Amino acid sequence: MGGVELLDELRGIVGSGHVLVGADVRAGYEVDWTGRFRGTSPAVVRPGGTDEVARVVEACARAGTAVVPQGGNTGLVGGSVPLQGEIVVSLRRLDALGPVDAASRQVLVGAGAALAAVQAHAAAAGLAVGVDLAARASATIGGMVATNAGGLSFLRHGGMRRQVVGLEAVLGDGSIVAPLRGLAKDNTGYDLTGLLCGSEGTLGIVTRVRLQLVQPPAERSTALVPVPDLAAAVGLVASAHRAGLQVEAAEGFFDDGLLLVCRHLGLARPTPASTAYLLLDWAGPVDQLAAVAGIDDAVVATDAAGRAGLWRYREAHSDAINALGVPHKLDVTLPLADLDAFAVEVRTRVAAIAPGATVVLFGHVADGNLHVNVVGGPDDDTVDDVVLRTAASRGGSISAEHGIGTAKRRWLPLVRSEEELAAYRRIKAALDPAGILNPNVLL
Amino acid sequence: MGGVELLDELRGIVGSGHVLVGADVRAGYEVDWTGRFRGTSPAVVRPGGTDEVARVVEACARAGTAVVPQGGNTGLVGGSVPLQGEIVVSLRRLDALGPVDAASRQVLVGAGAALAAVQAHAAAAGLAVGVDLAARASATIGGMVATNAGGLSFLRHGGMRRQVVGLEAVLGDGSIVAPLRGLAKDNTGYDLTGLLCGSEGTLGIVTRVRLQLVQPPAERSTALVPVPDLAAAVGLVASAHRAGLQVEAAEGFFDDGLLLVCRHLGLARPTPASTAYLLLDWAGPVDQLAAVAGIDDAVVATDAAGRAGLWRYREAHSDAINALGVPHKLDVTLPLADLDAFAVEVRTRVAAIAPGATVVLFGHVADGNLHVNVVGGPDDDTVDDVVLRTAASRGGSISAEHGIGTAKRRWLPLVRSEEELAAYRRIKAALDPAGILNPNVLL
Repeated sequence: MGGVELLDELRGIVGSGHVLVGADVRAGYEVDWTGRFRGTSPAVVRPGGTDEVARVVEACARAGTAVVPQGGNTGLVGGSVPLQGEIVVSLRRLDALGPVDAASRQVLVGAGAALAAVQAHAAAAGLAVGVDLAARASATIGGMVATNAGGLSFLRHGGMRRQVVGLEAVLGDGSIVAPLRGLAKDNTGYDLTGLLCGSEGTLGIVTRVRLQLVQPPAERSTALVPVPDLAAAVGLVASAHRAGLQVEAAEGFFDDGLLLVCRHLGLARPTPASTAYLLLDWAGPVDQLAAVAGIDDAVVATDAAGRAGLWRYREAHSDAINALGVPHKLDVTLPLADLDAFAVEVRTRVAAIAPGATVVLFGHVADGNLHVNVVGGPDDDTVDDVVLRTAASRGGSISAEHGIGTAKRRWLPLVRSEEELAAYRRIKAALDPAGILNPNVLL
Repeated sequence: MGGVELLDELRGIVGSGHVLVGADVRAGYEVDWTGRFRGTSPAVVRPGGTDEVARVVEACARAGTAVVPQGGNTGLVGGSVPLQGEIVVSLRRLDALGPVDAASRQVLVGAGAALAAVQAHAAAAGLAVGVDLAARASATIGGMVATNAGGLSFLRHGGMRRQVVGLEAVLGDGSIVAPLRGLAKDNTGYDLTGLLCGSEGTLGIVTRVRLQLVQPPAERSTALVPVPDLAAAVGLVASAHRAGLQVEAAEGFFDDGLLLVCRHLGLARPTPASTAYLLLDWAGPVDQLAAVAGIDDAVVATDAAGRAGLWRYREAHSDAINALGVPHKLDVTLPLADLDAFAVEVRTRVAAIAPGATVVLFGHVADGNLHVNVVGGPDDDTVDDVVLRTAASRGGSISAEHGIGTAKRRWLPLVRSEEELAAYRRIKAALDPAGILNPNVLL
């Protein structure tokens, strides 16, 4: 079946108004948020329900036409844009929010619901989503499941895989699996839910998600703490745990990044200057900080506006970096003991191959997770290569939370053996026999 | 290749002394703990390391000979005994305990290490294993991973899948996968670790496990509380949470079970008689119980001996039931709101088809998980059928934590759709192409 016939079939499934073929209406679906990944698609298809997704996938599988599932398109590794001419299947119309079940603290939501919408919905019931991230206004729950999103609350609640107690997905042959009973204890077969989490749209398209919500703390405090290096930041988080603080988040960044943010936002440095900073967020009163040894010159806040003001120094890093140019964004995990040494080494190594580049590091220090941003280096993969090899050589991961996408595929063998990759390929063939689901991602 | 040649090849791999063929030495490997599941095996093979496991599996795959992996053989669903003449691959020699890493709170252990040995090893470093269960002296970590064991601490720490930050396993073709870096945040491909957890030996044989340990509470208290029914027990747990108790476990049982235990142990009823009882265990001082409304006549303990004494009323249920005869043991999860009504309904339904049978219910009430034990009913599947159908009809699961094994295979379609079962079969074929790993289990 040729392209025209397939598009006609897709129009029959989702309605003509939901098959977008004009270049202007496709444009927003064809480029990622950073502007680094850009492609073209014959059409953007916007199904309105699970059955329509299944029929779209089945038709594309029959035609042998590749698709890229897309949620909020906030990914950073080129995993949700049509780089090889794939059809885009946008899930944004699947944004229904089910009632919050107070007894089980669960909610069933459509894959296309934005995180912020689900957060507001949960908050109305006195609950919260266990994962939070800066792209909350656009990032969709389905995309967050597909990429096993981590974010700002990982230390406290884990990543997306832990929040998902069931999901519905369309596999590569158009079949629908829906382990949605939402029972915490349910050993009845393979963990399809966990397998689809983090599979980056290559095994199935997530259509609905049953989320386990969490109880938000009654009181929260935030401190911005100058520290001499990341090792000190990691040490302070351990001290805070020992002192009995219920740490909700522990973010780290450096003075060059802080100054970039201050210039971008027109703000002054909020604390005395230091090499690095720890943003510590905990559930409890601000005076608990006195029990944590080794903290001087911290700026603290407990009210929502004050806390948001402190968080802004961390969250505005991405915007401030993007304002400099199109960044290389790497996202690595290191063993905690190696985090600080990695931060020093990676700057040296990048400077050696890209002397004029700007390197900005920030991340979730208590998770060992650093985001390495490089602006102004060579317009090829040499910077990525040196960053990822440096992380892998220290026993780290080349992707903490962003995933592999298309951007990191060539480095996957740094952290996965040939036997593991072979197992992945066999799982891929099992659930997507025609190989049409995001075929240029991950493997 | 015939049986004799295969056994010779296996002797060449593991050494003659580790291929057990005599009926007397095989006997303990051929029958399960309850005595309900019994088979015969041409040989019990005891490899001494991962490479030997891989070579054994590869040889069996080449010969087309089925194997049953076996750890402590404490399973309850016939998943680890050679019911169809399979070769038993015992993992008990793989019992090495690596050093506890204090910074990451992780430990790498062999699959054959018994839970109690790992618990003692972790305790020596001031830490604990997040899963605990009554069979701790025999149950092995590998078997607990393969069955995604739940147990007594599920409410607080989740099941085995959550404790595992990496594992090594031999797939059905003899290839070894070993995602063992132990990084909490690591989105680099499919979650093989989570997929192998709970796969019941049908996708791979677990050989080593990297466990995330937990911090044990400094102070613990236990209360045995008479309650009018399970709904009241569930309500008390919710009240305890609201009152700020950090609940570590919440177990429930009924007066008939308590009397059975008392007779078995020669003890008196520890509290005034009631229809049901809640065993509540929390991290904190005993006076916190005063903050939980609705508790009268509770017996409490804070010292280790006193707490163990209270726990004995719960943990001795299995022994007391086994002393009556070979039980049908069913293990179901219900939505919390349905738990009490299920307990009433299942007794009525079993009594209707097995009037002389003894029905004993106990379980992890806050997880919605009940163990239904029936002794003295018909020696066929009619009791199992009515129990599992009653659970499934209320939106429950036919296996909370025991798994499917051979015992519950025929009821799996009650809770899994044909599309889900088809996906399972394709995953099975992908990772065990010769179909030799526990072929009579799960699917």
